[in-house]
Amino acid sequence: MTFAERVRGREKLVGYWIVTDNAPAAERIAGIGYDYVALDGQHGLLDTRAWLAAITAIDAVGASAGLIRVPAADPMWIGKALDTGARGVIVPLVNTAEEASIAARACRYPPDGIRSFGPFRSSLRIGPEPADANREIVCLAMIETAESLRNLDEICATPGLDGLYVGPADLTLGVGGRFPGDPAVRPAFDEAVDRILVAAEKNGLACAMHCQSGEDAARWLERGFTITTISNDLAHLEQAATAHLKAAHS
Amino acid sequence: MTFAERVRGREKLVGYWIVTDNAPAAERIAGIGYDYVALDGQHGLLDTRAWLAAITAIDAVGASAGLIRVPAADPMWIGKALDTGARGVIVPLVNTAEEASIAARACRYPPDGIRSFGPFRSSLRIGPEPADANREIVCLAMIETAESLRNLDEICATPGLDGLYVGPADLTLGVGGRFPGDPAVRPAFDEAVDRILVAAEKNGLACAMHCQSGEDAARWLERGFTITTISNDLAHLEQAATAHLKAAHS
Amino acid sequence: MTFAERVRGREKLVGYWIVTDNAPAAERIAGIGYDYVALDGQHGLLDTRAWLAAITAIDAVGASAGLIRVPAADPMWIGKALDTGARGVIVPLVNTAEEASIAARACRYPPDGIRSFGPFRSSLRIGPEPADANREIVCLAMIETAESLRNLDEICATPGLDGLYVGPADLTLGVGGRFPGDPAVRPAFDEAVDRILVAAEKNGLACAMHCQSGEDAARWLERGFTITTISNDLAHLEQAATAHLKAAHS
Amino acid sequence: MTFAERVRGREKLVGYWIVTDNAPAAERIAGIGYDYVALDGQHGLLDTRAWLAAITAIDAVGASAGLIRVPAADPMWIGKALDTGARGVIVPLVNTAEEASIAARACRYPPDGIRSFGPFRSSLRIGPEPADANREIVCLAMIETAESLRNLDEICATPGLDGLYVGPADLTLGVGGRFPGDPAVRPAFDEAVDRILVAAEKNGLACAMHCQSGEDAARWLERGFTITTISNDLAHLEQAATAHLKAAHS
Amino acid sequence: MTFAERVRGREKLVGYWIVTDNAPAAERIAGIGYDYVALDGQHGLLDTRAWLAAITAIDAVGASAGLIRVPAADPMWIGKALDTGARGVIVPLVNTAEEASIAARACRYPPDGIRSFGPFRSSLRIGPEPADANREIVCLAMIETAESLRNLDEICATPGLDGLYVGPADLTLGVGGRFPGDPAVRPAFDEAVDRILVAAEKNGLACAMHCQSGEDAARWLERGFTITTISNDLAHLEQAATAHLKAAHS
Amino acid sequence: MTFAERVRGREKLVGYWIVTDNAPAAERIAGIGYDYVALDGQHGLLDTRAWLAAITAIDAVGASAGLIRVPAADPMWIGKALDTGARGVIVPLVNTAEEASIAARACRYPPDGIRSFGPFRSSLRIGPEPADANREIVCLAMIETAESLRNLDEICATPGLDGLYVGPADLTLGVGGRFPGDPAVRPAFDEAVDRILVAAEKNGLACAMHCQSGEDAARWLERGFTITTISNDLAHLEQAATAHLKAAHS
Repeated sequence: MTFAERVRGREKLVGYWIVTDNAPAAERIAGIGYDYVALDGQHGLLDTRAWLAAITAIDAVGASAGLIRVPAADPMWIGKALDTGARGVIVPLVNTAEEASIAARACRYPPDGIRSFGPFRSSLRIGPEPADANREIVCLAMIETAESLRNLDEICATPGLDGLYVGPADLTLGVGGRFPGDPAVRPAFDEAVDRILVAAEKNGLACAMHCQSGEDAARWLERGFTITTISNDLAHLEQAATAHLKAAHS
Repeated sequence: MTFAERVRGREKLVGYWIVTDNAPAAERIAGIGYDYVALDGQHGLLDTRAWLAAITAIDAVGASAGLIRVPAADPMWIGKALDTGARGVIVPLVNTAEEASIAARACRYPPDGIRSFGPFRSSLRIGPEPADANREIVCLAMIETAESLRNLDEICATPGLDGLYVGPADLTLGVGGRFPGDPAVRPAFDEAVDRILVAAEKNGLACAMHCQSGEDAARWLERGFTITTISNDLAHLEQAATAHLKAAHS
Repeated sequence: MTFAERVRGREKLVGYWIVTDNAPAAERIAGIGYDYVALDGQHGLLDTRAWLAAITAIDAVGASAGLIRVPAADPMWIGKALDTGARGVIVPLVNTAEEASIAARACRYPPDGIRSFGPFRSSLRIGPEPADANREIVCLAMIETAESLRNLDEICATPGLDGLYVGPADLTLGVGGRFPGDPAVRPAFDEAVDRILVAAEKNGLACAMHCQSGEDAARWLERGFTITTISNDLAHLEQAATAHLKAAHS
Repeated sequence: MTFAERVRGREKLVGYWIVTDNAPAAERIAGIGYDYVALDGQHGLLDTRAWLAAITAIDAVGASAGLIRVPAADPMWIGKALDTGARGVIVPLVNTAEEASIAARACRYPPDGIRSFGPFRSSLRIGPEPADANREIVCLAMIETAESLRNLDEICATPGLDGLYVGPADLTLGVGGRFPGDPAVRPAFDEAVDRILVAAEKNGLACAMHCQSGEDAARWLERGFTITTISNDLAHLEQAATAHLKAAHS
Repeated sequence: MTFAERVRGREKLVGYWIVTDNAPAAERIAGIGYDYVALDGQHGLLDTRAWLAAITAIDAVGASAGLIRVPAADPMWIGKALDTGARGVIVPLVNTAEEASIAARACRYPPDGIRSFGPFRSSLRIGPEPADANREIVCLAMIETAESLRNLDEICATPGLDGLYVGPADLTLGVGGRFPGDPAVRPAFDEAVDRILVAAEKNGLACAMHCQSGEDAARWLERGFTITTISNDLAHLEQAATAHLKAAHS
Repeated sequence: MTFAERVRGREKLVGYWIVTDNAPAAERIAGIGYDYVALDGQHGLLDTRAWLAAITAIDAVGASAGLIRVPAADPMWIGKALDTGARGVIVPLVNTAEEASIAARACRYPPDGIRSFGPFRSSLRIGPEPADANREIVCLAMIETAESLRNLDEICATPGLDGLYVGPADLTLGVGGRFPGDPAVRPAFDEAVDRILVAAEKNGLACAMHCQSGEDAARWLERGFTITTISNDLAHLEQAATAHLKAAHS
C-alpha cells in the first residue's frame, strides 16, 4: 500500500518533524520506523536547497515518506516541494475553501489541478506520469486559525484534499489563548479539535495532530486522529542535552 | 576565570559534542549550561564553513567556549580552527611527542609557537594581541592509539600542551578490541586509561574523556577525569526519536 | 546588436536550458555558441544563490545572454532575477492579460513599469541607468494552459511584452493530454501552437518554443518560431551516460 | 530601553545596510556602535540562509538590533525574517493602507495580528511569549512610489505600524525622475519627503531615510528624520578599494 | 556479491566519473546501471559537503557503489571520504610502496590499518562493525607518474591494496608526453600500461583505466582491464550541448 | 603582456586582498583597475567553494588576474587553487628551499613539475595545454619566518619560483616582535626586508609586500618592491562604516 493510500484509508500513522537543515539527521530518523518524516518549510530553518538534500536523504533509506510543510498556500511553493520528490505537502494557514482548493489543485496536474510539469527529481521517485503523481501525492490543509474554523465545512468539501492537519500552537492563539497551551482557553481549544475531528471523519478525510512527544501522539491517536507528527529535532536535542548535563553533574 | 584557566586549573568541566552542520543546534546547546561545545571536524559531517557558522552561533550565546576537533595534527587545520574564533582545539591521533609539539606550537604565535597571524574573526573574540591568544587558547591531544600509549610520557612532557583527551572507540581498537566497547579488551582499556590519568596528573595536564551520556560522564569525572564531553547530537536525536516513536505506538 | 534587439527583431535564436545548480556547467555551455543560457528557477533544482553563481559564470564567458525562468509571475521573483544581472526573464503560467502586464511592468523601472531600484550586480552588466535597463531587459510570457489560450489576444496586446514562450509539456496537459507528448491531443496541440505563432507574429512579438533536442529546435525554427531553447542538462547528461554505458558493454 | 521602545520613542537612530551574504562583515559592523544592522532581503544578494547566518552574527555581538528588509509585503517573508530572530522588518513597496495593514499584522501574533507561531530561533532572542514578541518587533513601511504618496495618510493610520521608511531611489523614479538623484525632480522629491515627515510626526511614527553616507545621514537627521540607514557594504568597499588604488599609484 | 567482492574477484566493472557538485546528476546516473559512480575530489569542483550530498544521492538509488577520488594519499582525506559512506577510494599520485601502504591502511580500522572510528553516516550503509567496513571498503591506487612506474612492483605488493588505477593524462606526461594523448609517446605509454596490467594480474589486483567514452572503455576492457571509469559529466554535457546546437542550426 | 610576464618582468603591480566569501565584492573590485585580486585561502574565511565562485566572478570582469593564497605549501592545495582558474598562488610559510621547490613544482605539469592534470575550469581560462599553463601560472613564496630568512638565498635559487612575498605581520613576530607593527623590532624588520629585496633583485625575482593601505603600498613600491597587495575587504569595510557612523553623529 502506498503512503497516499494509507493516508486516504485513514490508517494510523506517526511521523517526525524536522526544523533544521540537517540531511544526515533526516536520514537517521527515516531509518527508525516513522511512517513519514516532514520538513518544516514554513518556520523551520531550512530553504529549498535543504528540502532537496533532506528528501534525497529520506529516500536513501526508502522506509519513510518525505513530506514538506510549505511556507504558504501558494502553488509556486507547493510545486517546488513536490518537484523535489516529496510525497505530499502540509499547507499552513488554510483559512478558506478557496485556499484549500488552490492547495489541492496545486498538488495535481491537469485535468485534476493546476500543477506545472517539470518533475526533474520527483519523476525518479513517483514516476513521470501525471496520473501517477496525481494519485500518489497527499495534500493536507492546516486548520489553525479562527477563520479556518468558521470555514471548516467548506474547507472539508474541497475536492482533492486528503486531510486536515491541526496546528495546536496557532489554533490556541486563534481561539483566544495568550500563548501555546494556555489553559485558559482549553475548553475552546478542545471544542475546536472535536469539531475538526468530526468534520474530517464526516468527509472521509485523514486528520492529523502536531504533537510534542510520543506520549502526546498516543493520546491524540486514541482520541481519533489518524495521523500524528512528533515535533521536533531541535527541541528533542535540547531536551536530551539538558538531561545529559544534569546526569553528568549528579 | 577564562576557559583556558579553568582547563589548566584542572577544574571539572562538561562539554557537548556536535557532529552535524547545524549552527542553530549549536546555539541551543550553548545556552543549556555546558562549559564548552565542541565541533567534530574530523569525523563529523561539517567543513570549515560549518565551523565558522557554529562557532559564531556559540558565541552568540556567550556562555560556552567553542572548541573544534581538527581533522588532523596539522598546523594548517589548527590555524583554520583558531582563526574562526574557537577557544581551543582537540587534536586527533597524536601518536608521538613530535606530533604533540607540532599541535601545541600550531596553537601559539611566535615566540611560543608557529601559528601564522591573520585573526580575521578570532580577533573579535579573543583579542588581536598574540600574547593574549597564546594564553587563552587550549590545546588538547588525543591519546587513542597503541603508538600514543607507548609514547605517553614524552607526549605529556610537551611544552604548551594543556591536556590529554581520550578517544575510547579508537583506543579500544588500539588495545586490540574488535569493536568500540569490546568487553574482551576491557582490562587492557582500563589499564590504558589509568596510565593516561596518572600521566596527566603527574604532568599537571587536564585529562578529558569522550562519553556517550551524562551518566557515562559522571562516572569518568568521579574516576579522575577533569573534562568530559558528552557525544553526540546525531546519536541523541536518534535515541530521542526512537523513544518518542515507541511511546506513540504504546 | 544587443540580445534584446535581437529578440525584438525576431531574429532566430537558440538557447540552452539548465535545471541544476551547476555554475561550471553554465560557464561551459555559455562558451559553445548558444545565443542565451536559461536557468530554470521554477522546476529546476536551483535557488536564488544558484542564479547568482550561474549568471556570473555565464557573464564570465561574455558570449551568451543569461536568462532566468522565474518561479511565478510575481514582481518579487522577477526583480530578484534581474538584480542578479539576467538579461531577461521567462515568466511561467501567464494566464491573463493582467498577469502579462504585471510581468512586463515588473521588468521595467518607472515610468515604464514597477521594478524597484537596487541593481547591486546588474548595474555592472547592464548599466545603472533605469532607461538602459528598461530597454535591454527582455520579458517572455509562457503560454502553457487552456486559460492562456483563451486569453491569447489580450496577452499579446500587453505593452512591454517582448515575446511568447510555449511550454509544450504543460500545454499538452492544458489541451487535454494525459502526459507530455500525448499523441491523442496532437491535433489540438498543433492548432494551439499555430494560434500562438500567428498571434505573436501579428503583434510583432518573438515566439519561443521549449525543445528537447537540436533536431526538435530545427523543426520548430522552420515552422516559424523565432526562439528555441534546447532542454536540458540533466536529461542530456543522462542520455550521454546511458549511451556510453551501452557502448562500454558492447 | 529596547530597540522597539527607542524606535517608538522617536529616538535618533543610525543603522547600517548590508547587501551581500557576509556574516563576518555583519558581525564586524555590529561591533562598531550602529543602533541596528539591516540586511537587504529584497535587492541584496542574500537569501534566507544568509539571513540566519548574519542575524546570528549580529546577535553574537549583542550591541545592535538585526533588521531585515523583506522581499515583499508578504506575511510569509515577514514570518521567515522574524523567525530568524530579527528585531524588525522593513517592508518594501507599501502602496496602500491594506498592504500596510498586512505588513503590521504579519509582525504580530493573534490577537494583534496574523503571525504564525514557530519561533525556532527567535524564541532564544526575544522570548517565546507572543505578547513579548508583539511588543518587541518593529514594523517599518517603505514609502517609495507615487501610489504610496497618494495613500500616505491612510497608510500612516495603520494600527501596529511603527514607522515609515523612505527609499529615495525608488521615490525619485516615483515622482518622475529618470534616475536616482535626478536633479530635475528635486523639488517634487523634497515636497514628498516633507509630506512624509509631517505625516509620520502627526501619527507618532518613526521616520527613516535610506542614506549613502554618514554626511547624508547627518543632514537627514537634522531635517527631522528619526532613523537613518547608511548604505551599503558593497558600495563602501568599492569606494575604499578605489581610494586605496589611487593612493598606491600616486 | 558486494562491490568489494566484485572488485577483488576481478569482475569486469564500468563506472561513471563526476567532476561537479551536482547530487541530482549523481542520482540520475546511479540509476542507469553503472556499477559505481565516482566523485572526483581531487580535480573535480566539489568539496566534502558535495561528497556527502552526492554519496547520499547515489545511495538513494541503491544500485551503484559510490566512490571518491580523494585529493591526496592522506589518511585524513581517506577517512573523510569513507565516513560519508563511500564504498571505496581512488587514491591519486601513489608514487611509492610507502604511500600505497598509507592509503591501504587508512582504509581499514585496526588491527588491519589506521582508520579512526567515527562512522556517523557510513555506519548506516556499511554497518558499524570495524571488521565489516574493513572487508567492504575498496582501495585503488593511481599509477600515473614516472616514479610510480619505477616502484610498481613494490606498490603491487602492498597488503590491503585492492587494485591499481591508471590515470592516462598524468601518465602520458609522466612518460614524457607534452599533453594528454600525445602520440609522440604512445609507445612508452602502451608499454607502461602493459607493465601495469601484468603487475596487477600477477598480484591478483583489480586494474582500472580512466576513459573518456564508452567506446574507449570497451577497448580497455578487452585489453585486460577489469575496471573502466567513463569520464565525465562536464565533458559529456558540453559534447551533447555542442551537438544539439549544431543540429539546431542545420 | 600576460600577468605572468608582467610579474616576471618585475613590473610594478598593485593588487587587492579578500578575506571573506564574497564573490560579488570580488567582482566589483576586479572592475576597479587592480592588476590582481587575491583570495586569502589561509586565514581568510573562505573555502574551496568560495575560491571557485570568486575566481569566476573576477574572470567575469576580465581585467584582473585572480590569485589564491593557499592554506599551506602543499601540492594538493596548490592544485586545487590552480584548477579553479587562478593565475597563480601565494604560498605561505615557505621556510626552506625544499618547500619552495615543492611549491614551484606543484604549479607546473611535468616535465617542469609535479602538477596533476585535471583542469576542469582552468582549461577554459588558461588553455588546456600543459606548456601554456606552466608558462602562465605564477608562484610566489611567502617569506615570513625567522627560518625563511635563514634560508633566503637557497629559497631564491629555486627553479620555477617567480617571486617572494613578504607577510609583515608574521615576519614581525618572526624577528622577535610581540605584535604586528611592534616598533621595538623595527630595525630588525627593516633589515630583513632589505635582505629580501636584495635577494629578490639578485635572483631576478618579483618581490611583493602585503600592505594595509594605498599609502602603505606607495611607500613600499618606492622602496623597491615590484608588487604590493592592499589588504583587506573586512578591515576596509569596518573602517568605512566607522567613519560613516562618526559623520552621521557629528
